[in-house]
Amino acid sequence: MEKTVSIITLTTDFGTGSPYVGAMKGVILSINSAATLVDLTHDVPAQDVHHAAVVLEDVTDRFPDETIHLVVVDPGVGTDRTIVYVRIRRQHYVAPANGVLSRLVRRTPATRIVQVANSEYWLNPVSATFHGRDIMAPVVAHLSLGVDPEQLGPPLDSIGRLQWPGVYQTPERIDGEVLAIDSFGNLITNITADMLANRPTDERVCVVCGLYETWGIFNTYADQPQGTFIALIDSNGRLELAVGGDNAATRLGIQVGTPVTVAWE
Amino acid sequence: MEKTVSIITLTTDFGTGSPYVGAMKGVILSINSAATLVDLTHDVPAQDVHHAAVVLEDVTDRFPDETIHLVVVDPGVGTDRTIVYVRIRRQHYVAPANGVLSRLVRRTPATRIVQVANSEYWLNPVSATFHGRDIMAPVVAHLSLGVDPEQLGPPLDSIGRLQWPGVYQTPERIDGEVLAIDSFGNLITNITADMLANRPTDERVCVVCGLYETWGIFNTYADQPQGTFIALIDSNGRLELAVGGDNAATRLGIQVGTPVTVAWE
Amino acid sequence: MEKTVSIITLTTDFGTGSPYVGAMKGVILSINSAATLVDLTHDVPAQDVHHAAVVLEDVTDRFPDETIHLVVVDPGVGTDRTIVYVRIRRQHYVAPANGVLSRLVRRTPATRIVQVANSEYWLNPVSATFHGRDIMAPVVAHLSLGVDPEQLGPPLDSIGRLQWPGVYQTPERIDGEVLAIDSFGNLITNITADMLANRPTDERVCVVCGLYETWGIFNTYADQPQGTFIALIDSNGRLELAVGGDNAATRLGIQVGTPVTVAWE
Repeated sequence: MEKTVSIITLTTDFGTGSPYVGAMKGVILSINSAATLVDLTHDVPAQDVHHAAVVLEDVTDRFPDETIHLVVVDPGVGTDRTIVYVRIRRQHYVAPANGVLSRLVRRTPATRIVQVANSEYWLNPVSATFHGRDIMAPVVAHLSLGVDPEQLGPPLDSIGRLQWPGVYQTPERIDGEVLAIDSFGNLITNITADMLANRPTDERVCVVCGLYETWGIFNTYADQPQGTFIALIDSNGRLELAVGGDNAATRLGIQVGTPVTVAWE
Repeated sequence: MEKTVSIITLTTDFGTGSPYVGAMKGVILSINSAATLVDLTHDVPAQDVHHAAVVLEDVTDRFPDETIHLVVVDPGVGTDRTIVYVRIRRQHYVAPANGVLSRLVRRTPATRIVQVANSEYWLNPVSATFHGRDIMAPVVAHLSLGVDPEQLGPPLDSIGRLQWPGVYQTPERIDGEVLAIDSFGNLITNITADMLANRPTDERVCVVCGLYETWGIFNTYADQPQGTFIALIDSNGRLELAVGGDNAATRLGIQVGTPVTVAWE
Repeated sequence: MEKTVSIITLTTDFGTGSPYVGAMKGVILSINSAATLVDLTHDVPAQDVHHAAVVLEDVTDRFPDETIHLVVVDPGVGTDRTIVYVRIRRQHYVAPANGVLSRLVRRTPATRIVQVANSEYWLNPVSATFHGRDIMAPVVAHLSLGVDPEQLGPPLDSIGRLQWPGVYQTPERIDGEVLAIDSFGNLITNITADMLANRPTDERVCVVCGLYETWGIFNTYADQPQGTFIALIDSNGRLELAVGGDNAATRLGIQVGTPVTVAWE
């Protein structure tokens, strides 16, 4: 009988290096000492559910089928907010039902949603302020041992919702906004390569963000000199705005939510 | 014969991302390539043995029995300070004998203390400045392979001591102090839930820290509006002072050692 | 048939905590879910190939034979720069051919160099801006499964070059410079213990760096009072300049490239 490798990723806003992450890993390994633990990121800005949702959308489908993703960005801890188990694209997620999974299901609907309600799979006692350690960590560890998700609690209809900015498209222009800022300070927008398909991307296109504009959409940073404000399609298929060799967000003073317009003459 | 999984945690003040941590992991994996390595934290403030001692007290017992904890917070490296192997609560610790384990043994005495003196289990040569890599890392790796701790050196009586602030309790008040500041800036005190048991925790109790006071001791951050100075029992059973959604230490200018008083009218 | 443990280290300039590291790990584990992943460091200063080269020189030979080192410090991503597989001292490296491996081969020549050119072992499609995820990560994963490096592409002559500062030695003095600054702010020089062998290291030797001088070369920080500017031989056999208990680089305003002179009267 072959032992399957159980991969569990961890995404939190605890800050890389937080011993609270270590505590969650200890709980998981106490239940399944053979689990493979992977830090997805712990540098989600504090309580920034939107940021975490974008990270999960961009990264989780790089992992193998049956990977279990534990997400602890949980501003509502201690309230009666729900914790959910969700199955999306052959992977498993355990997270607060606060919308942190809401971008993942835009592309592919969840195939199962369960409320994490059965305390049989939790630590005992459960603290009021650290459900990541006391509820979610033991639940993912039990899942990695093969516990059926339906044992975790009753079925649910919703994984929680978040408001996401829209993108408005006309033949002359696309209006979106800065969706997230990555660790290099590059500006990730909610305009995708799909929206730009079959449109000119050479010097006939103008991209405007805040007070700055640039002409043309390129393939790589190397297509323009260092220090230039440049638009390109990033490695996740999004329109990205960057300053070659520099931190665009701090250099240009641009924040999440700043409008981005792509216009053709 | 079943191979047991060997879990080794690492706690240092090298800073997360330091390649010195990578060097220690390389040494361990060169001796036991099957070891499971877990970063407990590398963000202990430089040479802050007290901080590390509190982290170890709060986190290590989340790990399974027989976990081996490597602790390299070692301001005395290069002096003739001792390195110790210590067994506490069915787990193993290798650390400098500088008191970094002194909070762990407040609850449960060590059941074995050995001086790490037998250079047979060390790298050769040993550098003067990096005993974490050259002595402690290979020792934990050999332990994970089943080396008997008594092979490491002669028995010892002491794991090293540190001065810890006292807590003074009367029927009207408890006087303690800020013991540590966590990565969110929350103030961890040396006053415990046990000390508060059987006392009112509603608006009849006043908690004072530095120039700030708050009434009532709550269960979660969510019990008070964002931005409020709040007292609660944290997930490790300590009285914690926080500012909801903010960094209390920098916001209020409070440091480790600031007196904390809990008073009943 | 025994499954060998496959250790893969990751070195990048993405910043510890970057989800881009998580994406690379997902790709690797999707191909070889049994790989052991070790973060060597992700805090290489952005695009600082020299810094990464020194880290690799100091740390990689602590790992076991057959370890696979993935190095993504890649300012030329998107240009036609080459990616190489290199075998050095019984270990494997996959990196851009930008000189990041050039210090490793100063001590021991590479025994095999292959151009990573065979897209059969890459993700499909390959993005223009993230070859770490789309080319290098899958290549190291396939290597860890036993793919013969000669399958990766044609043989090459060069791993890429970088300019490294020289060291000038006379009987009276050695002139070098600051090669790197570690995470503690200690100044790592390109003057080695070998160059100092058979020379006095007591108070007859003067070490000058920028505007600062110190007499004597010591074994450990503990040999001088806290706050003293001190020269010592570090744990990797280099002359290191430090301020005990402080960050020498920021305290003294010294940068990589600052001249360092060791002089005997």
